[in-house]
Amino acid sequence: MAQEIDLRIALGIEYDGTDFFGWQRLSHGPTVQGALEEALSFVADHPVTVTCAGRTDAGVHARCQVVHFDSAAARNERSWMLGTNSRLPTAVGVRWAVRVADDFHARYGALGRRYRYTILNRPARPALDARYVAWERQPLDADAMHRASQALLGERDFSAFRTIACQARTPFRNVRSVQVRRSGDQVLIDIEANAFLHHMVRNIVGSLLPIGRGEQAEDWMAELLAGRDRSVAGPTAAAAGLCFIAPVFPSGFGLPAEASRP
Amino acid sequence: MAQEIDLRIALGIEYDGTDFFGWQRLSHGPTVQGALEEALSFVADHPVTVTCAGRTDAGVHARCQVVHFDSAAARNERSWMLGTNSRLPTAVGVRWAVRVADDFHARYGALGRRYRYTILNRPARPALDARYVAWERQPLDADAMHRASQALLGERDFSAFRTIACQARTPFRNVRSVQVRRSGDQVLIDIEANAFLHHMVRNIVGSLLPIGRGEQAEDWMAELLAGRDRSVAGPTAAAAGLCFIAPVFPSGFGLPAEASRP
Repeated sequence: MAQEIDLRIALGIEYDGTDFFGWQRLSHGPTVQGALEEALSFVADHPVTVTCAGRTDAGVHARCQVVHFDSAAARNERSWMLGTNSRLPTAVGVRWAVRVADDFHARYGALGRRYRYTILNRPARPALDARYVAWERQPLDADAMHRASQALLGERDFSAFRTIACQARTPFRNVRSVQVRRSGDQVLIDIEANAFLHHMVRNIVGSLLPIGRGEQAEDWMAELLAGRDRSVAGPTAAAAGLCFIAPVFPSGFGLPAEASRP
Repeated sequence: MAQEIDLRIALGIEYDGTDFFGWQRLSHGPTVQGALEEALSFVADHPVTVTCAGRTDAGVHARCQVVHFDSAAARNERSWMLGTNSRLPTAVGVRWAVRVADDFHARYGALGRRYRYTILNRPARPALDARYVAWERQPLDADAMHRASQALLGERDFSAFRTIACQARTPFRNVRSVQVRRSGDQVLIDIEANAFLHHMVRNIVGSLLPIGRGEQAEDWMAELLAGRDRSVAGPTAAAAGLCFIAPVFPSGFGLPAEASRP
């Protein structure tokens, strides 16, 4: 019998985070990582551990989380996708599986991460989209929020938007783009950075909201950044509005376009 | 004490139909009408019965269902909305309340109804949007589906797309517009008619799907219509993909633009 050789597989994962205690495996509640590893271990017929591009908190969703794992199981890309999907709960799905080079690493290899935050901005609370939006009943000035958000661009110290529980070694992150725009009764906030501190997107949104309501001036974001004091910035915005759109990997790994930079 | 006079109120209602046994009140399970009447009866402090613009089946959603009811309770429009929302489950919400003339009737006064059917068209099953889409893994030709759908336009006998359980007096309905288009990995079907037979939209979609997959010719829709035989048309498409966008009322009643024709 030939010696089994581990192959590295990358997966694109979509999930509705509403009913999970976040991404990371826990002993005391359902997590996306736990559900995924259980399904993959069944399909691989050996214990599988995955590494992800970006951990998400309880209630946060993902359009295309990326993970990698190693297995010597004789499965093609299609089998990994179909087999795993048949063992996952409805709220989690494998969108694609790609055999990648051994030096692919979902966490350390990602060049960036893209998130979207969605705010339903109307007098009536959400119902049809309640799982996927935050709610703000006061009219928001999305243009003012956009202008204020441009102060975040570049390599900066994001201590003002970092939760106390954050374990990152440095508070510096590089925000490459941030756009705030209105689409009907929704306000959409798209943000890309090399990486994010714990709660960073939700804390940024929590400080953009008072600007949108006209309670703070547009230069407040720049002031908060410079002050580096979490306690004076806005509260953490609701988890439901946040979706991890996708990480960005070098194109050489052959991932689908949504997770790859040309 | 002055005699109490009933006022007629119209409400715009949004709901995620996933966990309901449809619109119509039942003794043996949760329904949207049941939840709404319970909440309204609490706010009004008397039993309230509502009449809707279009009943929806189990699992079907609504962006703007419209209902009317009568009450002598001293509540303004804002109180009806906020009070009722505070008593409704998360999956149902009142978007607006408008005092309307006594001759407003949510069912008989509606000039038309607009529905959208959403198909996620990709190899991987849905996860993030699982509550709101139907799934088709075979690539669909949305342009062919659109061309085929144009055979439905006008006042026609829709017996081929009518469920056996349908209680309507006539199989004739007037389809005013139908559009099929692709948006990324979704195929969207927008259809407006004066009214719909029971299961009519889902049965139409069920026959457009084989055309989109290339299993039937584009003129199959016209053939099915002419044959008036439900048993040869496609199966009923999944409920999850269907959303009642809004009914259309004459502008004179003062309803918000989404439910009103200028």
